[in-house]
Amino acid sequence: MAKLDASVQELLQGKNFAFVSTVSADGSPHVTPTWVDTDGDYVLISTGLGTVKQKNAKRDPRVTIAITEQANPYNLVIIRGQVVEQISGSSATDLLDKLTKRYMGMDRFPDRQLASTQVTLKIKPVRVYTRKM
Amino acid sequence: MAKLDASVQELLQGKNFAFVSTVSADGSPHVTPTWVDTDGDYVLISTGLGTVKQKNAKRDPRVTIAITEQANPYNLVIIRGQVVEQISGSSATDLLDKLTKRYMGMDRFPDRQLASTQVTLKIKPVRVYTRKM
Repeated sequence: MAKLDASVQELLQGKNFAFVSTVSADGSPHVTPTWVDTDGDYVLISTGLGTVKQKNAKRDPRVTIAITEQANPYNLVIIRGQVVEQISGSSATDLLDKLTKRYMGMDRFPDRQLASTQVTLKIKPVRVYTRKM
Repeated sequence: MAKLDASVQELLQGKNFAFVSTVSADGSPHVTPTWVDTDGDYVLISTGLGTVKQKNAKRDPRVTIAITEQANPYNLVIIRGQVVEQISGSSATDLLDKLTKRYMGMDRFPDRQLASTQVTLKIKPVRVYTRKM
């Protein structure tokens, strides 16, 4: 398990987007931008049940994530990791609400039906690459 | 071959970053941000010879690219495509110089040795997804 340095944690806890890549069933690559968080050790992605990345990560847990700082796109972190757990239930809803607050400035995610079926992808970092310009 | 609408072309010709995902030899996903351009029909990526994405695209030409507008990260285009040609030589150097001008405001790429070994990935769009918020 790779360590997330303070500067990496800062990027993951800022209003920045993580571009999450997974591999689809036909072996082709998939990538999509998402909100992101960290508990200090793991990378946390909030996604809907049934999205391509959720299903891909179920079949093959290997993911690679590229995050750049919104204010400086040359401040880059790339994390190769493994989805060790897919968490549903109230803690997944809580994460979505926390991220809605951070990214949208709203107290909670407006669609409570959708919020109740949210899934947290808990990602163990295996390799971390950083580049700052 | 999918068509690139005017709004998609605008995104590809702006000062925006393309997050290019490919699949590595071990079957794991790879993603990295790059400068990007289009000739109106194809997506053009400038990369170095021997980079992970260049080698991955040689082995498996399927790529997926996510591009968001720098000023509005919720303006998103995702393009699934196929690298139909890897172009080296003076036209690849010219593309790098053009992108250096657009992204860095410099007349040409400063490292001429590196510029001379640049490769253009010419990507045929197969499917284009857009979301604007």
